[in-house]
Amino acid sequence: MFVAKVTGAVVSTQKVAAMVGFKLLVVEPYRVENKDRRSLVTTGRTLIAVDTLGAGPNDFVLVTQGSSARLTPETKNMPTDAVIVGILDQVHVGGDCVYTRQNEEASSSGT
Amino acid sequence: MFVAKVTGAVVSTQKVAAMVGFKLLVVEPYRVENKDRRSLVTTGRTLIAVDTLGAGPNDFVLVTQGSSARLTPETKNMPTDAVIVGILDQVHVGGDCVYTRQNEEASSSGT
Amino acid sequence: MFVAKVTGAVVSTQKVAAMVGFKLLVVEPYRVENKDRRSLVTTGRTLIAVDTLGAGPNDFVLVTQGSSARLTPETKNMPTDAVIVGILDQVHVGGDCVYTRQNEEASSSGT
Amino acid sequence: MFVAKVTGAVVSTQKVAAMVGFKLLVVEPYRVENKDRRSLVTTGRTLIAVDTLGAGPNDFVLVTQGSSARLTPETKNMPTDAVIVGILDQVHVGGDCVYTRQNEEASSSGT
Amino acid sequence: MFVAKVTGAVVSTQKVAAMVGFKLLVVEPYRVENKDRRSLVTTGRTLIAVDTLGAGPNDFVLVTQGSSARLTPETKNMPTDAVIVGILDQVHVGGDCVYTRQNEEASSSGT
Repeated sequence: MFVAKVTGAVVSTQKVAAMVGFKLLVVEPYRVENKDRRSLVTTGRTLIAVDTLGAGPNDFVLVTQGSSARLTPETKNMPTDAVIVGILDQVHVGGDCVYTRQNEEASSSGT
Repeated sequence: MFVAKVTGAVVSTQKVAAMVGFKLLVVEPYRVENKDRRSLVTTGRTLIAVDTLGAGPNDFVLVTQGSSARLTPETKNMPTDAVIVGILDQVHVGGDCVYTRQNEEASSSGT
Repeated sequence: MFVAKVTGAVVSTQKVAAMVGFKLLVVEPYRVENKDRRSLVTTGRTLIAVDTLGAGPNDFVLVTQGSSARLTPETKNMPTDAVIVGILDQVHVGGDCVYTRQNEEASSSGT
Repeated sequence: MFVAKVTGAVVSTQKVAAMVGFKLLVVEPYRVENKDRRSLVTTGRTLIAVDTLGAGPNDFVLVTQGSSARLTPETKNMPTDAVIVGILDQVHVGGDCVYTRQNEEASSSGT
Repeated sequence: MFVAKVTGAVVSTQKVAAMVGFKLLVVEPYRVENKDRRSLVTTGRTLIAVDTLGAGPNDFVLVTQGSSARLTPETKNMPTDAVIVGILDQVHVGGDCVYTRQNEEASSSGT
């Protein structure tokens, strides 16, 4: 799994039937910053993940890839290879808290 | 999953029986541009995906990889690890619309 | 899946029983050239794939990875994660034909 | 599998039900240093893995990815793609011992 | 699959029960050298694979990744994503033999 920031969403009307009705979010994987190691920085990659938890823009989430993405009740028959399995409250690295979720109500008010 | 642009197709007469009759498209994964973050740019990678939706050249599509590529009705017994699961209408990043599908009739008129 | 060039083969006498009798080819994944986009260039990577189609040196082939590599009749119980599922006749990108198979008889005369 | 250093943990209250109650550690994959080959160095990547063995900060662990991450008794129905399958005591490369676990009691006293 | 050189081993006493008693080798993936194409060179990556064939230090082996790593009789219930499926005798690229196993008895005398 990896930590990613929710930065957007995609719209697709013409899609495989099993995917209709699901939110498809743009997620960008993050990593620990190499030098001071006190923050998370983007890896520069862009993926799309199914969201069943109601993640909002700028939330940091935990993403599962591969066949395990079908191990949630909602995704079990879906041709997806990435699903959001948790919305992160905090990320701790080397004794420091490098991410804390702020203002949850505001951040979940739209995608 | 990832966002990719359809840029071509492959022709193969000598292939595994389960793949006969399916369209095999050249797809190039895209990512959010790092600086202004208002466009999608190519990752420089090239993959081949099965298409069951009728995607055309220059369409942006959603591609599923791995065993999940066999979770569509058409691909369930096929030795493929990549399938197009949606044709994208729009991609939104950071509040901006970074892609809108244009002129659908024209773009789907050939591969 | 990806497009790869067959460039060699490996010999292994001491191997897992299920793999005895199968041809194991050296394949190098190719991608669309970034600038003129009129040719395929190597990615610099090297993989080994099971061949059940009789691909020869310098053939461009379509390779499936992961569990889907076990979805051909010959490979279903084999511990392989890569199989050649098609020998390519042509690859089209952006309206151009960037690869055409030539002289099939000559190219399939050895590995 | 790969060797990784445990460097932190994530906290998530809003997550898929099957993941409740499991420790989710930040792990950074390491590789053999290229020149002297007498140490392990970070690859710069950051992943999150389920821990069922009680690994602590700075421990080097063995991580399994993909569907095989569901092959432990605790993770079999969990939508995870990474699990810690061993805490490493030693890593040997080229005749040298490039890592020895030290002071186990201290290192396992917190995350 | 990929070609890798066996360069070491890991020791882990605290591990998932299904992995007890198996040899876990350090393997470094190799690729064809880009210019003269007459040798194999390291990719700089480091992985750990289960060995059931008795591979020794400096042997070049064939490694299978992902769920297919569980398709050998010994590994079928094991949470591993990488297994050695063959010890290589020769690797041929472009008509040249770029690797020949030498002095098997000596090389298999220890890990």
